[in-house]
Amino acid sequence: MTHPPTITAEPLTAEAFAPYGEVLEASGEPDKLINEGKCGRFHDRARMDFGGGAAGISVFQAQLRETPHRLDMLERHPLGSQAFIPMSQSRFLVVVADDADGQPANIRAFIARAGQGVNLHRNVWHGVLCPLDGTGIYGVIDRIGPESNLEEHWLAEPMTVEV
Amino acid sequence: MTHPPTITAEPLTAEAFAPYGEVLEASGEPDKLINEGKCGRFHDRARMDFGGGAAGISVFQAQLRETPHRLDMLERHPLGSQAFIPMSQSRFLVVVADDADGQPANIRAFIARAGQGVNLHRNVWHGVLCPLDGTGIYGVIDRIGPESNLEEHWLAEPMTVEV
Repeated sequence: MTHPPTITAEPLTAEAFAPYGEVLEASGEPDKLINEGKCGRFHDRARMDFGGGAAGISVFQAQLRETPHRLDMLERHPLGSQAFIPMSQSRFLVVVADDADGQPANIRAFIARAGQGVNLHRNVWHGVLCPLDGTGIYGVIDRIGPESNLEEHWLAEPMTVEV
Repeated sequence: MTHPPTITAEPLTAEAFAPYGEVLEASGEPDKLINEGKCGRFHDRARMDFGGGAAGISVFQAQLRETPHRLDMLERHPLGSQAFIPMSQSRFLVVVADDADGQPANIRAFIARAGQGVNLHRNVWHGVLCPLDGTGIYGVIDRIGPESNLEEHWLAEPMTVEV
């Protein structure tokens, strides 16, 4: 599998990201108003899938990354989906790819803007968590369990992701 | 059940909040370093409980509240836990209570500081989402399903929560 040496990150939108997962954001009209009209609920926005395993909430504290981003590895989680909810108003880089015979193909990059999180579907190839600004702290909802749930793919040649 | 007319919010700490749920924060040493040491994982920090139902991720957009806070109602969710992950660096007020014969008792208030979320255990009495600053946007992980999962208790006399 060969990849282009450089790709450019796109804005993160629900439509563009649909093959890989969902964008978690308060966008458009809420599904329901609660708390006497003082709170809008954008309801059930992530396709969570833990293959019969248990979901958990963890907190990640990640170092900010420099741009352009040097991409040398993609990973995937065969046993479950994984959601990232930024705990600051901040941007992060989301690298995803299709799968072709067990390897990442058609690698794409998205910029999540302030107020956007993502849920990655089970077994979707993705880059590591790349905060571009803010605190680097994220709420993470993924599968908890003793089984191995990480597959890494190192690129033959690192790629550059322009932001 | 009588309640004091005024209570004062306490700082939110894991120890103080333990009877009601967990504090979700990057505090102390992470359980694991991932992504070549660039990310700390504070692992599996919420006791999620959906009674055999399904977890989902929603996004709440809540109006900021004024202080002192006028508390007139507490609610609980008999079928599942509920976690709130603020998507901005911001403070929110977390009102919780014990249960005494189906009514809230010993009402307490906590201030979650920037970087803190909470997970409320199943059936714990709590106030509505009360952002004090920031965007008012939260990732919410709770039970998704058609069954009624809300019980409200209106106080005979509103209380004041000093912040």
